[in-house]
Amino acid sequence: MIRFECDYGEGAAQPVLDLMQKTNLEQTPGYGMDEYCAKAQELIRRLCDAPQADVHFMVGATQANLTVIDAALKPWQGVLCADSGHINVHETGSVEATGHKCLALPSVQGKITAQQVKDAYEEHWALDNHEHVVQPGMVYISNPTEDGTLYTKEDLTDLSAVCYDCGLYLFVDGARMAYGLTSEGNDLSLEDYASLCDVFYLGGTKCGALFGEALVILNEDLKKDFRYAIKQHGGMLAKGRLLGLQFLALLDGEDGTGKSAYFQMAAKANNQAMKIRRALEAKGCKMLFDSPTNQQFPILPDAWLETLNQKYATSWIARCDDSHTAVRFCTSWATRDEDVEALLADIAAL
Amino acid sequence: MIRFECDYGEGAAQPVLDLMQKTNLEQTPGYGMDEYCAKAQELIRRLCDAPQADVHFMVGATQANLTVIDAALKPWQGVLCADSGHINVHETGSVEATGHKCLALPSVQGKITAQQVKDAYEEHWALDNHEHVVQPGMVYISNPTEDGTLYTKEDLTDLSAVCYDCGLYLFVDGARMAYGLTSEGNDLSLEDYASLCDVFYLGGTKCGALFGEALVILNEDLKKDFRYAIKQHGGMLAKGRLLGLQFLALLDGEDGTGKSAYFQMAAKANNQAMKIRRALEAKGCKMLFDSPTNQQFPILPDAWLETLNQKYATSWIARCDDSHTAVRFCTSWATRDEDVEALLADIAAL
Amino acid sequence: MIRFECDYGEGAAQPVLDLMQKTNLEQTPGYGMDEYCAKAQELIRRLCDAPQADVHFMVGATQANLTVIDAALKPWQGVLCADSGHINVHETGSVEATGHKCLALPSVQGKITAQQVKDAYEEHWALDNHEHVVQPGMVYISNPTEDGTLYTKEDLTDLSAVCYDCGLYLFVDGARMAYGLTSEGNDLSLEDYASLCDVFYLGGTKCGALFGEALVILNEDLKKDFRYAIKQHGGMLAKGRLLGLQFLALLDGEDGTGKSAYFQMAAKANNQAMKIRRALEAKGCKMLFDSPTNQQFPILPDAWLETLNQKYATSWIARCDDSHTAVRFCTSWATRDEDVEALLADIAAL
Amino acid sequence: MIRFECDYGEGAAQPVLDLMQKTNLEQTPGYGMDEYCAKAQELIRRLCDAPQADVHFMVGATQANLTVIDAALKPWQGVLCADSGHINVHETGSVEATGHKCLALPSVQGKITAQQVKDAYEEHWALDNHEHVVQPGMVYISNPTEDGTLYTKEDLTDLSAVCYDCGLYLFVDGARMAYGLTSEGNDLSLEDYASLCDVFYLGGTKCGALFGEALVILNEDLKKDFRYAIKQHGGMLAKGRLLGLQFLALLDGEDGTGKSAYFQMAAKANNQAMKIRRALEAKGCKMLFDSPTNQQFPILPDAWLETLNQKYATSWIARCDDSHTAVRFCTSWATRDEDVEALLADIAAL
Repeated sequence: MIRFECDYGEGAAQPVLDLMQKTNLEQTPGYGMDEYCAKAQELIRRLCDAPQADVHFMVGATQANLTVIDAALKPWQGVLCADSGHINVHETGSVEATGHKCLALPSVQGKITAQQVKDAYEEHWALDNHEHVVQPGMVYISNPTEDGTLYTKEDLTDLSAVCYDCGLYLFVDGARMAYGLTSEGNDLSLEDYASLCDVFYLGGTKCGALFGEALVILNEDLKKDFRYAIKQHGGMLAKGRLLGLQFLALLDGEDGTGKSAYFQMAAKANNQAMKIRRALEAKGCKMLFDSPTNQQFPILPDAWLETLNQKYATSWIARCDDSHTAVRFCTSWATRDEDVEALLADIAAL
Repeated sequence: MIRFECDYGEGAAQPVLDLMQKTNLEQTPGYGMDEYCAKAQELIRRLCDAPQADVHFMVGATQANLTVIDAALKPWQGVLCADSGHINVHETGSVEATGHKCLALPSVQGKITAQQVKDAYEEHWALDNHEHVVQPGMVYISNPTEDGTLYTKEDLTDLSAVCYDCGLYLFVDGARMAYGLTSEGNDLSLEDYASLCDVFYLGGTKCGALFGEALVILNEDLKKDFRYAIKQHGGMLAKGRLLGLQFLALLDGEDGTGKSAYFQMAAKANNQAMKIRRALEAKGCKMLFDSPTNQQFPILPDAWLETLNQKYATSWIARCDDSHTAVRFCTSWATRDEDVEALLADIAAL
Repeated sequence: MIRFECDYGEGAAQPVLDLMQKTNLEQTPGYGMDEYCAKAQELIRRLCDAPQADVHFMVGATQANLTVIDAALKPWQGVLCADSGHINVHETGSVEATGHKCLALPSVQGKITAQQVKDAYEEHWALDNHEHVVQPGMVYISNPTEDGTLYTKEDLTDLSAVCYDCGLYLFVDGARMAYGLTSEGNDLSLEDYASLCDVFYLGGTKCGALFGEALVILNEDLKKDFRYAIKQHGGMLAKGRLLGLQFLALLDGEDGTGKSAYFQMAAKANNQAMKIRRALEAKGCKMLFDSPTNQQFPILPDAWLETLNQKYATSWIARCDDSHTAVRFCTSWATRDEDVEALLADIAAL
Repeated sequence: MIRFECDYGEGAAQPVLDLMQKTNLEQTPGYGMDEYCAKAQELIRRLCDAPQADVHFMVGATQANLTVIDAALKPWQGVLCADSGHINVHETGSVEATGHKCLALPSVQGKITAQQVKDAYEEHWALDNHEHVVQPGMVYISNPTEDGTLYTKEDLTDLSAVCYDCGLYLFVDGARMAYGLTSEGNDLSLEDYASLCDVFYLGGTKCGALFGEALVILNEDLKKDFRYAIKQHGGMLAKGRLLGLQFLALLDGEDGTGKSAYFQMAAKANNQAMKIRRALEAKGCKMLFDSPTNQQFPILPDAWLETLNQKYATSWIARCDDSHTAVRFCTSWATRDEDVEALLADIAAL
């Protein structure tokens, strides 16, 4: 079975393992207070052009999401998000477990708009008894979204402006940040994220690391005592250097031109994904979402799907009609060209 | 600086890294549903002689503690523990963050007794208004304790009997399980843990893994839906196989005689620790705790400590009097004999 | 201003105050362990034909809702409810504050169906990674609903059967129970609630008491230690007898024929509400919801609303189009006939 | 049985019931937005000489405690308190249920000192890994304490100064405030509380009301959105005016000289309590705590206790030795002089 079902099916990019091996027996302080974390933090600050940013390494995306949201919100505040947002549907209510409601907004192609945020905010405060209703305190978006789509620079600028006006934090889940930054559909840079968001992260788990996400906090209010929040939620790795090391390996040599492994691998994966998309479109398949990134969501005739699934693992997404099903094909930093070629041939032969 | 301050200062035992590298590009299902996790679970069940046990791999000890306790207790229940217990003092209130009070009992050398548990239970239920007071629902102990000491088989048997009689879960934090099992002071086996506890874990982080603990659930009531609990707290690793792989590497070849790396490395660390202890005792130093494991807590004249700290990192534990300080010397699976020899020589020269 | 905006604008039915005054200086044990609570509990058990039921008196509806839900669910479970359900929209996320997600289902006229519950349950368990998604653990409905509508005996029987099949608790918020039971549209009895639900309550606050709801627990699993849950959430009234006394006063003389104040007052209020509805319908107004109870939701031309609001307070519900607004007219146990007559005359004169 | 076991065994002072009856059928807005609440808030602000204070009426003391603490603290902060503090021992872990640890300090006669607070604060921040330990965020004291003792003006001034220096909130639980303010041992005024605390309350439940506490918030940071916190915890009474009315009745005519029912009744109860104390001391009994307020804690020979308990209910406090038991005698606003006289005679006859 060749797996296209997700982008976390393999281990890690080789430079990650190499650097771990190389430094394995060095003795460092625990809990992320080591030199490797410090270097990785400095590198990320530089790539974001945000010398004042706080950078923390989190063990995973759900952990990052719940920790940031819990730390940021007052007990009676909730987080505005797309109804398809990861925190709303695929994290077992981890945000609610910290006491906060996900205030889901109807999304289109995985995205919500600045206008929706503004309306939700104004509707809340227009209520006579607004204290009977959860108060919006933050906006959470994923970019790329769970549907593979992208917020543009204009989208993010508008969201940022509304959030600023309304006193809402803007938090971007960048679990697939590398695929977003290197997509042909992208016009955002790390500097843009750093200047438009209060907090965001560069995903590692899905972008070549064994695990880990690099959280960048821009807003001063969110910086204070954040390490307490990490520890309280069980997210402070004893051997914290493992997180710093991985980002050092992935971003090694990065100068903003995308030459590091982190960017190169993602660009290749996007390229592979677009080939798969075009092959399917050439056969007349529609796409459930218009994704320019490493996740593709074709709507397939059931017979075709059955054929492909004998050889290729995909993720089930939705039943579309009596004879069609939408599935997800994921490429990743680890996807082999020969596997893509085989798939393309098999698609052509359908 | 040679570091004796903790047992998580290095990376991982070489077999761990080797197995990760070897399997790196294999494609497996995520979230611990892979073959490596299945094999490691089966191996651990066999070593525990507990074919019915559920085994889950957790990313770290705080995560394991808060997840188990939150999953096991009713909202109004608390967890009885030593006042020096890790959950009570060094996890930023993570148990309270899930809504449960740590019901701290005075400890001696890091240990609590079956009698204390029985008394606490009976005092609770003897209260007229017992519903105004947190109800004991579980007993948490660490073995080895935070002070390096050990519960004996008799201790654990007594605790287990009281817990059974009182309807309390018995949970053993085994973050340093390998050091406990291989200590000269130990008379417990994994089979004993499995037959006496409701849930316990074999630590990985401090015993040769990069990270991770192997949680063993014996009590049927605690098994149901436990994976939801892991996910909700952000503890479900996307590349879950990394956890299974590590325990496979550490326990490779284990047949109950302690021949695997997990046991061999810990036995050596205990041995090193006892050498350090004896050297200090030979110089007239008293020990704050009577530990037969890899953590030693000498009470040192300040001048001696200052001298040693120029070369060796230790952990500060307590100020004992005007001129003495208790510190911790930790050995680990990674401690080099030459570093111990150097320390012994320097102690002798004090 | 004559207030039709809600059903909690006045104090309490006179028998309530009389009984409080009469017993005021008696000394009783605190926290609901007194004779008056015992008598009220016994009376309610008899009216429900549920001798095994546990009855607890709660200070208010939000308190009752959050306490029941928190006590019943495992940490990773959520509560299925109408998207218009009180817990989902008007309790400041109190359910989420206890760690549980409201799993909102699209409602029609404030109601959800057994089929929706069944579908939600089956969809959950059909997921590959169901542990990544909040597990349904309970169904919460309000009857009468927030829209004034009623579940029929068939509706409730179907919901009960699905819940039983799926292992979900069925919880009925009866904040306006008296208005429901005495509505012309009702075919349910207290015995029906007791035999079909796991837990429900008879509202006091909106039905003639100063405050308080009488919670009836039928399911054995929910009975254990429930007083701890009440106390933990700050809902255990020191002078608990005040709650028992109020229900004794309201239900005094009740023999199942509806002769007590609780039923008589509600029946009158329903009658008044239907008069208002018919008067508005006679003028051509449509109703937003088809309510047979004390809450009516006419869609009014803005000019008419402005006229009426000079003399009568109503609650704003929704903007319907450019020139129409839906509002709520509420009658209650305290609504005076002369105020209704005045309103009817003013409606006729529109 | 004549009850001296607590101060909440009766209903309410007559003026409370009278005012409720008098205003019963008036229509007012709900949730505390009525004129009576506004007047009571204004009156309390005036008595506190704190025109900028926010005053909220809470349904009970546990509710007040958990709501204030949850609203004030960051998730990783805990509340310093006496080990005998009500929140630490008698509220079923309600503070922990909101996610926060009670950081219990050893108390003497129910009191903690400014020095203890300072030490706890400094010890926390002196830790290398302070983020692994719950951060102190607030100091909670009760005055009178649970042991009936009083903090003096000097005590409170010192605590206030330390809290200010350390950035800790100072919160005073005044469930028995009336008994404290009118005790011979008291040198504090409401103005003092208002100038020294960040937030405190005047108890109603134990001081003549049916239920309710008047919370006074002085610190600007705690004022914002506090009504959300009340609602979220189920503490917002629909008929909120009932709380305002009760404080209006109890404080009617108060001009700072203690002429209102609230103060007069408490002064009388203190007087009765001191008579009981002196009678017991005259018989040679020692007191467990040196209380100048309405709670007295004599250590009685078991035979005497048995005799007294045939006629008088008391609260069991502690077993002191083989033949002595400490119990609590409570007087209250409702204690009848003839009951005290009977008790005094029976004590004399022991």
